[in-house]
Amino acid sequence: MELLFLGTSSGTPTKSRNVSATAIKAPNAKHWCLVDCGEGTQHQVLRTKLSLNSLQAIFITHVHGDHCYGLPGLLASAAMAGRSEKLYLVGPAEIEAFVKAVCTLTELYLPYEIVFINSAWLNDCQPELELSVNAVKLSHRVPSHAFSFSYQNSERKLDIDKLKRANIKPGRHWGELQSGRDIKLGGELILADEYLLPKAKAQKIIICGDNDKPELLSDEIKSANVLVHEATYTYDIAQKVGAGPMHSSARTVAEFAGKHQVENLVLTHFSARYQHDTSSSPSILDVEQEARAYYGGNLRLANDFDHYRLDKNGLLSKL
Amino acid sequence: MELLFLGTSSGTPTKSRNVSATAIKAPNAKHWCLVDCGEGTQHQVLRTKLSLNSLQAIFITHVHGDHCYGLPGLLASAAMAGRSEKLYLVGPAEIEAFVKAVCTLTELYLPYEIVFINSAWLNDCQPELELSVNAVKLSHRVPSHAFSFSYQNSERKLDIDKLKRANIKPGRHWGELQSGRDIKLGGELILADEYLLPKAKAQKIIICGDNDKPELLSDEIKSANVLVHEATYTYDIAQKVGAGPMHSSARTVAEFAGKHQVENLVLTHFSARYQHDTSSSPSILDVEQEARAYYGGNLRLANDFDHYRLDKNGLLSKL
Repeated sequence: MELLFLGTSSGTPTKSRNVSATAIKAPNAKHWCLVDCGEGTQHQVLRTKLSLNSLQAIFITHVHGDHCYGLPGLLASAAMAGRSEKLYLVGPAEIEAFVKAVCTLTELYLPYEIVFINSAWLNDCQPELELSVNAVKLSHRVPSHAFSFSYQNSERKLDIDKLKRANIKPGRHWGELQSGRDIKLGGELILADEYLLPKAKAQKIIICGDNDKPELLSDEIKSANVLVHEATYTYDIAQKVGAGPMHSSARTVAEFAGKHQVENLVLTHFSARYQHDTSSSPSILDVEQEARAYYGGNLRLANDFDHYRLDKNGLLSKL
Repeated sequence: MELLFLGTSSGTPTKSRNVSATAIKAPNAKHWCLVDCGEGTQHQVLRTKLSLNSLQAIFITHVHGDHCYGLPGLLASAAMAGRSEKLYLVGPAEIEAFVKAVCTLTELYLPYEIVFINSAWLNDCQPELELSVNAVKLSHRVPSHAFSFSYQNSERKLDIDKLKRANIKPGRHWGELQSGRDIKLGGELILADEYLLPKAKAQKIIICGDNDKPELLSDEIKSANVLVHEATYTYDIAQKVGAGPMHSSARTVAEFAGKHQVENLVLTHFSARYQHDTSSSPSILDVEQEARAYYGGNLRLANDFDHYRLDKNGLLSKL
């Protein structure tokens, strides 16, 4: 699976970070999905190879503006770009009301269908995608969800060693077995299933909305390769700000990921106070150092346009 | 007066142009006004010296998304930047409904007052600004207005020649007369009014919303120094596209400005098909050449971040 970060700032854009948006896609897929759509997401998309025509679904974690104010413009531009295929829009019920109100009040007519799915019902009502998706309830000032994307490569590889041991030669027979068809060889029935290796383990990436209780992900994290979670503040600033905003600190998330031995942790959604220039204070380096102190796995701090691939061995690396 | 273009593309952003937004301010003023607020306007403001705290009023010409989808995010970021002063929002009634619906559905609480003024009533209900503003009805698919900004420098300069002829010496007396106070000199009453030159002529800049009938501005244009008007298409493309979109071509606007001897004409709101790279076709050069063929005055084609000043002699020049 691939991840492309389109916005990594919390609340308000800065000169170096836009507000929340993350693209995710299955390996080698043409289609892609978007998680959150802060204002200016369509502008960020313009600076990538992604096309609004191949966008299959948008998932909105919660209704706060820095996660959804880019929706109307992106939907309008997709229409202008000639989109006609239906688009899934998964989110809280208010997101459907928001899109409908904006369309009515600003006379926006979309020439394609939007299929709204309430996040609360997502686990029973899956969109038709290359990825399967679960929603997990989080804790924030408004209802917020994590979306957990799984990719199961249905292809099974041939067990070459076993074929050689059985003296079945490469060629047409291998092709038939690979495609799952049983064959007859010298009068003997050869079952494809016995010469195919088990399916590769499903890959799973969890992309979270705003959340002050990472432990809500304790079940979902067990089978996940990657956790993408907000780390709005460092611990000391989070203490000063108080519990009101209901965000996580780098330490809280890192402790959770460490405890559950998450292989890959990507932090994002940083308060605008953390400067990109690491010679200033506080800087994004403070967030990173705090997280490293509590988590020894593959830690990444997302920047806009960072492009990651999760490989077959479960390692997330930058492209 | 000064103009700073923040978005000059029609309908959808491109890599080099954002959607509509123009900043305007009185000479040497701290406060500024914004005409239209397409998505990403707050991002453009970040790249200028303008501050959301000194924004006094927003004027929305019409409800189409490329002129207003940046409003919610800009209002939210102004709140996060600690704004507490009231903000005027002038536009069609739907704009008030749009802002209110978005605030409710996305739980956006603004810590400052928004004073809504319906564009249709603007001429009877002026916001308290350094500039006075008229609204002029235009012709588009939805109700659209031009906003005509006037600046009257109330300061009157001393008539130095007349003072010298009357043998009134520089010093305290000049200061008193300058500030409008009559003085007594050698028993004689000297009236300030008689030694002050008339007020400078008011300056006027008209910034238009989408419009396919420039002649609707025939009255307002008489006393204007600058016309900022959309030129979405060249004439041939406008003919191909047909009357449906209700936009102007460069030729239509240039002919109108030429006929009315407008001193300064700024074209903006260009269809994304006109490439910034003038070696491509069609390019923005086609729009410019067409306009020049019909208008001999001071013609400008706006680019994002173009900054203009209208000087005392009525000439608009780039800063």
